[in-house]
Amino acid sequence: ILAAPAIATANSDLEKLSQNPANWSMWGGNYAGTRYSELDQINTSNVKNLQPAWSFSTGVLRGHEGGPLVINDTLYVHTPFPNTVYAIDQKTQSIIWEYTPTQDADVTVPVMCCDTVNRGLAYGDGKIFLQQSDTVLTALDAKTGKRVWSVQNGDPKLGMTNTQSPLVVKDKVITGISGGEFGVRGFLAAYDIKTGQLAWKGYSMGPDSDTLIDPSKTTTWKDGKVAPVGPNSSTSTWEGDQWKIGGGTTWGWYSYDPKLNLVYYGSGNPSTWNPVQRPGDNKWSMSLWARDADTGAVKWVYQMTPHDEWDYDGINETVLVDQEVKGKLHKTIVHFDRNGFGYTLDRETGELLVAEKFDKSVNWATHVDMNTGRPQVVSKYSTEQNGEDVNTQGVCPAALGSKNQQPVSYSPQTGLFYISGNHLCMDYEPFEVSYTAGQPYVGATLTMQPAGADVLTGQPDGSTNLGQFTAYDAKTGKIAWSNKEPFSVWSGSVATAGGVVFYGTLEGYLKAVDAKTGQELYKFKTPSGIIGNVNTWSYNGKQYVGVLSGIGGWAGIGIAAGLDSGKEDSNSEGLGAVGAYRSLSSFTKLGGTLTVFALPN
Amino acid sequence: ILAAPAIATANSDLEKLSQNPANWSMWGGNYAGTRYSELDQINTSNVKNLQPAWSFSTGVLRGHEGGPLVINDTLYVHTPFPNTVYAIDQKTQSIIWEYTPTQDADVTVPVMCCDTVNRGLAYGDGKIFLQQSDTVLTALDAKTGKRVWSVQNGDPKLGMTNTQSPLVVKDKVITGISGGEFGVRGFLAAYDIKTGQLAWKGYSMGPDSDTLIDPSKTTTWKDGKVAPVGPNSSTSTWEGDQWKIGGGTTWGWYSYDPKLNLVYYGSGNPSTWNPVQRPGDNKWSMSLWARDADTGAVKWVYQMTPHDEWDYDGINETVLVDQEVKGKLHKTIVHFDRNGFGYTLDRETGELLVAEKFDKSVNWATHVDMNTGRPQVVSKYSTEQNGEDVNTQGVCPAALGSKNQQPVSYSPQTGLFYISGNHLCMDYEPFEVSYTAGQPYVGATLTMQPAGADVLTGQPDGSTNLGQFTAYDAKTGKIAWSNKEPFSVWSGSVATAGGVVFYGTLEGYLKAVDAKTGQELYKFKTPSGIIGNVNTWSYNGKQYVGVLSGIGGWAGIGIAAGLDSGKEDSNSEGLGAVGAYRSLSSFTKLGGTLTVFALPN
Ligand SMILES: O=C(O)c1cc(C(=O)O)c2c(n1)C(=O)C(=O)c1cc(C(=O)O)[nH]c1-2
Ligand SMILES: O=C(O)c1cc(C(=O)O)c2c(n1)C(=O)C(=O)c1cc(C(=O)O)[nH]c1-2
Repeated sequence: ILAAPAIATANSDLEKLSQNPANWSMWGGNYAGTRYSELDQINTSNVKNLQPAWSFSTGVLRGHEGGPLVINDTLYVHTPFPNTVYAIDQKTQSIIWEYTPTQDADVTVPVMCCDTVNRGLAYGDGKIFLQQSDTVLTALDAKTGKRVWSVQNGDPKLGMTNTQSPLVVKDKVITGISGGEFGVRGFLAAYDIKTGQLAWKGYSMGPDSDTLIDPSKTTTWKDGKVAPVGPNSSTSTWEGDQWKIGGGTTWGWYSYDPKLNLVYYGSGNPSTWNPVQRPGDNKWSMSLWARDADTGAVKWVYQMTPHDEWDYDGINETVLVDQEVKGKLHKTIVHFDRNGFGYTLDRETGELLVAEKFDKSVNWATHVDMNTGRPQVVSKYSTEQNGEDVNTQGVCPAALGSKNQQPVSYSPQTGLFYISGNHLCMDYEPFEVSYTAGQPYVGATLTMQPAGADVLTGQPDGSTNLGQFTAYDAKTGKIAWSNKEPFSVWSGSVATAGGVVFYGTLEGYLKAVDAKTGQELYKFKTPSGIIGNVNTWSYNGKQYVGVLSGIGGWAGIGIAAGLDSGKEDSNSEGLGAVGAYRSLSSFTKLGGTLTVFALPN
Repeated sequence: ILAAPAIATANSDLEKLSQNPANWSMWGGNYAGTRYSELDQINTSNVKNLQPAWSFSTGVLRGHEGGPLVINDTLYVHTPFPNTVYAIDQKTQSIIWEYTPTQDADVTVPVMCCDTVNRGLAYGDGKIFLQQSDTVLTALDAKTGKRVWSVQNGDPKLGMTNTQSPLVVKDKVITGISGGEFGVRGFLAAYDIKTGQLAWKGYSMGPDSDTLIDPSKTTTWKDGKVAPVGPNSSTSTWEGDQWKIGGGTTWGWYSYDPKLNLVYYGSGNPSTWNPVQRPGDNKWSMSLWARDADTGAVKWVYQMTPHDEWDYDGINETVLVDQEVKGKLHKTIVHFDRNGFGYTLDRETGELLVAEKFDKSVNWATHVDMNTGRPQVVSKYSTEQNGEDVNTQGVCPAALGSKNQQPVSYSPQTGLFYISGNHLCMDYEPFEVSYTAGQPYVGATLTMQPAGADVLTGQPDGSTNLGQFTAYDAKTGKIAWSNKEPFSVWSGSVATAGGVVFYGTLEGYLKAVDAKTGQELYKFKTPSGIIGNVNTWSYNGKQYVGVLSGIGGWAGIGIAAGLDSGKEDSNSEGLGAVGAYRSLSSFTKLGGTLTVFALPN
């Protein structure tokens, strides 16, 4: 009884902070993950005058994902491993405090699949939450940087690491786990905000008691309707004990609906990447989840890519907006999956409303059957049907997906989603692999190539661009417009009330485009390639736009980890990224800089 | 006979390049080392509108000294160890080629006294010359980045390294050596521009045959006139063989007078820092040199700090301008020494014209006796007189000098020199040390403090600033104006025909001030602390200003090498810099970024 008011306060504090567009208080700008800002000082007419206002080198190289949090006067900036946190005074741009956790690089770094990235901090209850690479979740006093508590969330010796940003919900801090390439069984965990004690933990696969699925209450989409999943919905889709090393990690972004009290997120690929070794649907890998924030109980779950054969992790962010679909207003959840489909569901019920390709070059499936909710796989591109040690060629998208971790933004002004996209296909050859704890458990070799086809039509067009920036209507599943980018857009965008959408490019450009038309209005070459998210806030009446640059992540792994021999023999290094992104090294080098932009005084 | 025209061409090519202000073809902008640019598009009225135009992360952390060379369409950017070179296309800002030499970090980095800095490249004869840290001098094809030749200039196993920028003069590349803290005997060496073959080598100390001093022709300033130095001018000022490990390294900047065909530079501290161990004047450490460019023969030499007791290396740059002093027009050489005196000499004859303190807080000597050319040492601050194991306190300047490697600029418009200065004093305690090849041979412990006195008057004023930016008239020895800076200004300035002087600060600000008054007109916080030199050039009719940021060097060694425990016990680490610059870490972190500025379109 005593706890209740406190909980309510912590939660509504954070909600209030996020409703003030002066702040950027969580990764998505708000619980809905829209990455939309009400600020309109920078607009389509004056954004051409934008200029860097100040910059800050983090002192760390390699991939800088995520973006700064802004809480009143203070900016909180994080880095990739070793995960240093800086509290920066906006007024003086000097460092109020810094914190670098003690982590064993030799144990942790080698088991980070896709660069030493970290997607950012969370704020709540006067604390900054740092999800360290070595899985330790740490709470720091936001004023002093002193450690309040730490908790071990996994074991790097078993291939578990962390890269994602935690989410503060009420009296809990929610986090997940990485390691799908090491046979780690994914989970979502909630820790007490005051003490770090585990409150609940729901696995992506395993017995119902592990997944926190209630066979009769938890629903999914089947036969054209929402229905209970039934008992053993996960274990029955795996052979024997395979689910124990089954992947389905949770390294993406989480969102939250305070009214429904549900936390939303996606789970990743089943382990191994060799589908022949794991018969069955491999539930609940590759799924969208709705869990009760207090208990972790699963409200509904929906598997997008049953029995994955291409590494199409389902972890991409979920955006919560209310939209009218086919004449009916829904509380929707919108998710652009690696597999190339954009999904619109009713977030209260899990009803499947729309599932359309947001890049028409996608060829692994013809469509999603709206009745079963399952994709119709094209045999030619089925790495399972083609079998082990056969190189399945020209599968679109490539393993890193039509979109990867880079979060979309949504503008209520246009009703459009802005998708930072990849535009590649791949050759994928599965092979037999055996599991050893803490060792890579991948089981496929790949190379990637430009999609060479039109995003809007899917027609081959001889193009060589690896990226697209696409505006998409999630009510109808239609693409509004799409801009080509030479390289994947690995940076999350932000949409503003000024009618502008900002994103970064792998060469290092911060770009501003017109939200209505996609017309490029401004660009600036920041020090290094951008894989961070663009955030916006205001201070003393001035609107700022900030972004971390620092090339890396999966797309930039060749540069970040020095994997490129410069020759063809290294094309399949970095899980296939090295060959595809080789020419990127003519445009950018390692770095780690926050660049903050504003209009001139 | 065949070689002669080719030589003339190579030399005049480079001179021509340097006369076109679109280029920045050598460290000083021109052979005279004035760091003055005829460009005036950016001027005192519009510089407030300056903004970053693009930026480029070098992919390397630690101290970034020097600045980019600009030769027509191409920018050549260097990095600290591992000394990567980038050729960057100005039009696209993409990398045309890059080159990273193979160097043994374990051998070289530990014997670099003051961070892993490199002060930049030289251009000539279609080649880029890279003076690697490990002493290898490498010539690269400027178009392709392919190595043309390499030559070993020293041996890091004996404590020899290189940090300075080479200078191309006619058919030769001139370089020096670092290692004064390791008992290295300094020299200047000239290598054939086509083949890398050694042309001549002149030591700072030793027999006349080693120094290339002609006892009867080489002159110095004594008894109020220019006179021959006489035989054994060096060896006679050392005890026994001490000159063999006597220091006098040549790690600063070199300039050249094509008409006189003389190369100018300064030599560094005698080894060890314990003066008691090396009786005598220790010639020709701490001296200004004029050498014939073709033969290395010494025209004249002048020792500024005989028998150094404070580590006041004489290596700072020499600027060659023609000035009227006491009613007579001289071809002058102007040099602002670490010891706090600004020297104006006739560069043809070596006649001493002016020697005045450019920071009146300097207290180790009352003045320079214009007759003998020797400083009048104040006993209280003589670490020799106070003796071994005695802590001589409050010596001004501190060992890193009233100015260090950061080169000055000179504006013919104002007739003033712009000095990036340090404003610290020190406690210095010499101790007995024995020489072991390749091991530190320092022999003193120091700590540093703010000077706490006025630059213009020397009066104690309780100030805590560690830096000054000072305008000085080298004709009269008078300070025109001086701005306080919180930290040492470790960045070389540039003066322009627009009436503006640019410099960088350790916190990371690029600043523009009015050349006449010192009034601050613009500042921008670049990613990291600036110890690089600001250069300016133009491209397609637009004037650019560029500077490397990347904290380090001696002043920033605490951050660069992670030497600061955060506690007093580390105050004397980094040869005394850690304690003095501790608070710098609240302002900036490691980085390595070129930021290029321009006026808006
Ligand atoms: O299965 C996993 O646990 C896991 C983890 C991560 C990660 O934590 O960064 C990535 C992936 N998978 C992955 O498939 C992927 O494409 C990817 C890209 C990136 C990135 O940051 O660029 N991380 C990851
Ligand atoms: O005696 C030498 O050989 C030597 C070398 C160097 C160098 O090469 O950087 C420095 C010094 N001394 C030195 O005394 C000094 O103050 C200094 C500062 C710096 C710098 O780059 O910040 N280097 C050096």
